[in-house]
Amino acid sequence: MANSTESPNSTWLTLSITLTLASISASSAVYFWGKRRDGDFDQKQLIINELEKSLKESLKKCAAERQGRIRAQQDLRKAMLQSKSDKLETTYPMAPIGIIRSCFSTRNGTPRQPLIVPLARARLTFDAALVPPASLEGLEEYSHCWIIYVFHLNTDLDKLWKDPSRSKLKAKVRVPRLKGEKMGLFATRSPHRPCPIGLTVAKVESVQGNSILLSGVDLVDGTPVLDVKPYLPYCDSIEGATVPHWVKMDDLLTVASVDFSDDFLATLTNCWPAIDKKSLYTSPEEFQTLIKQVLSWDIRSVSQRTQVEENCEKTNNEQDNPDEGRDVIYHLNLEGLDVTYRITSKSNVLVENVSLQNNN
Amino acid sequence: MANSTESPNSTWLTLSITLTLASISASSAVYFWGKRRDGDFDQKQLIINELEKSLKESLKKCAAERQGRIRAQQDLRKAMLQSKSDKLETTYPMAPIGIIRSCFSTRNGTPRQPLIVPLARARLTFDAALVPPASLEGLEEYSHCWIIYVFHLNTDLDKLWKDPSRSKLKAKVRVPRLKGEKMGLFATRSPHRPCPIGLTVAKVESVQGNSILLSGVDLVDGTPVLDVKPYLPYCDSIEGATVPHWVKMDDLLTVASVDFSDDFLATLTNCWPAIDKKSLYTSPEEFQTLIKQVLSWDIRSVSQRTQVEENCEKTNNEQDNPDEGRDVIYHLNLEGLDVTYRITSKSNVLVENVSLQNNN
Repeated sequence: MANSTESPNSTWLTLSITLTLASISASSAVYFWGKRRDGDFDQKQLIINELEKSLKESLKKCAAERQGRIRAQQDLRKAMLQSKSDKLETTYPMAPIGIIRSCFSTRNGTPRQPLIVPLARARLTFDAALVPPASLEGLEEYSHCWIIYVFHLNTDLDKLWKDPSRSKLKAKVRVPRLKGEKMGLFATRSPHRPCPIGLTVAKVESVQGNSILLSGVDLVDGTPVLDVKPYLPYCDSIEGATVPHWVKMDDLLTVASVDFSDDFLATLTNCWPAIDKKSLYTSPEEFQTLIKQVLSWDIRSVSQRTQVEENCEKTNNEQDNPDEGRDVIYHLNLEGLDVTYRITSKSNVLVENVSLQNNN
Repeated sequence: MANSTESPNSTWLTLSITLTLASISASSAVYFWGKRRDGDFDQKQLIINELEKSLKESLKKCAAERQGRIRAQQDLRKAMLQSKSDKLETTYPMAPIGIIRSCFSTRNGTPRQPLIVPLARARLTFDAALVPPASLEGLEEYSHCWIIYVFHLNTDLDKLWKDPSRSKLKAKVRVPRLKGEKMGLFATRSPHRPCPIGLTVAKVESVQGNSILLSGVDLVDGTPVLDVKPYLPYCDSIEGATVPHWVKMDDLLTVASVDFSDDFLATLTNCWPAIDKKSLYTSPEEFQTLIKQVLSWDIRSVSQRTQVEENCEKTNNEQDNPDEGRDVIYHLNLEGLDVTYRITSKSNVLVENVSLQNNN
């Protein structure tokens, strides 16, 4: 980085120019008090005036340029120091070691817990520069592993990184199991945390080179992974660990039944060639089983559910059709396929159709 | 940030100055081809020459200053972009949300697993700017919680932060249970990981304001904490999870017995007033029980154990005293107290003495 302080030479130069200028003005002034001569004199005087003017302007511009240079160099130093302290003192810069390729293309539809959708597959591919294949030796001998990852789809991430203390993080969050009642965020697994790190467990299917095939995942496609650890039952599985009463109310999240429209499998089979090659599944039939497992849990957001329930209450009071809820069409996106379904007020799921998304 | 591109005005100024200069040189040259006049002419010519020289120098300096300013501003832009991309693309800057105050003053003595030392206490105090007390509401209703933290004592951290792909991370690590045999690091819980994040579970004793009292910890004093999550048995405790055979060989890490020298408790009671106020324990007796729990596991490093075992083998071959191992004195540092002990070749532990450390 260039040195922003003035060098003695340049200072001396400026000084000398200024002095010269002063003496010139003086001497030429003296001259004009003397008796006038012919055109040669006037011509020379014009030259002198013009030179004086140019020199003044040049000096002015010179000073401006110097100020600009000094300011820019000071800002540069500040920027350098800033980014340094950000990295080594106030925060730890965590570099993802790999990325998740999951069957869940969007957050909507991604299970709220691991292992409740046994067929939910993902491939974790490691950054070869950070993770040599030898570092995975022995992992396949474990039935399960932890995945520590970043909630990369949180919309408030940018603010969080720039100034954690300023980001408007909510201290309490709505809990799906409590129909939206609030809890302290550290009493939940909400993704909106001061440090947006996720923890989940998955089944280790196989290790191939620098990637792991996982199942039972609750991870959305594209999730950046920070670490993988073997699951150790003797310290991770705690006998007699207890939770608050409200955490046990699982029934809120299950559905009564999942059925498919008569021509669903035929439609799916037509779409299959488009995703076949990159699919984590071997056949349309296996993919249909995945859909059934995913939709056997109510994956709708709290607001979606509440809305429908209100409709149904209204309808029942009016002695009207109790299947009002059927009118809402929901979407589930798996491996880029758009699956449409309805849920009756008695929470029976009917899977109606499947189609390729635009990006396929 | 100032704009580094040349403004039309300044360009015009430079041009005009240069042209003026050219015309001046021309006219004065013409003059010198004319017939000579008296001293006034020479005086004026001297002025002109001096002015021309000064103007040339000034213009030269002006150009240099402009170049310097432009270079500095370009570097500044580069630096800004660099630190931005570091933060938002290649790495996630994780800010610790709290710090652990643990009974374990050093890594040596800190249990290798959570919950095996029930009396191992720690207080997690949260950064008030990041964690409002309301965010902890409901956490106390859980029996256990996860702690996600940074392995801040790894000596290679700085290198890792600066350039993850360049840091010399070992793909395989020595495993204490295997007497130092190596395993792929992702098949272990080794702290030396591409992303040095630790995962452990602890018992939630109580939540007070913006801090949690924990027990059964395996965390060293001063550990920076990134996140706390409730332990959910229905997804964290996996029935039938399996591990490789070598992971089960726990007996390698247990000792046969732990005894104290006759005057140990008396000596400890003398030291007590010095740590009483900041201690996580209520009495010397309770602290002695902590020591017994900690030393009932062999906390020595692999190299320490191997060394002693070699000595003993040698001695046994020489039909010599089988308690050769007694001659090695080990240190355990708890809450700043230095506890000294020996281990016999039959792995009986004798706790001999306790004293205040210099920093107390």
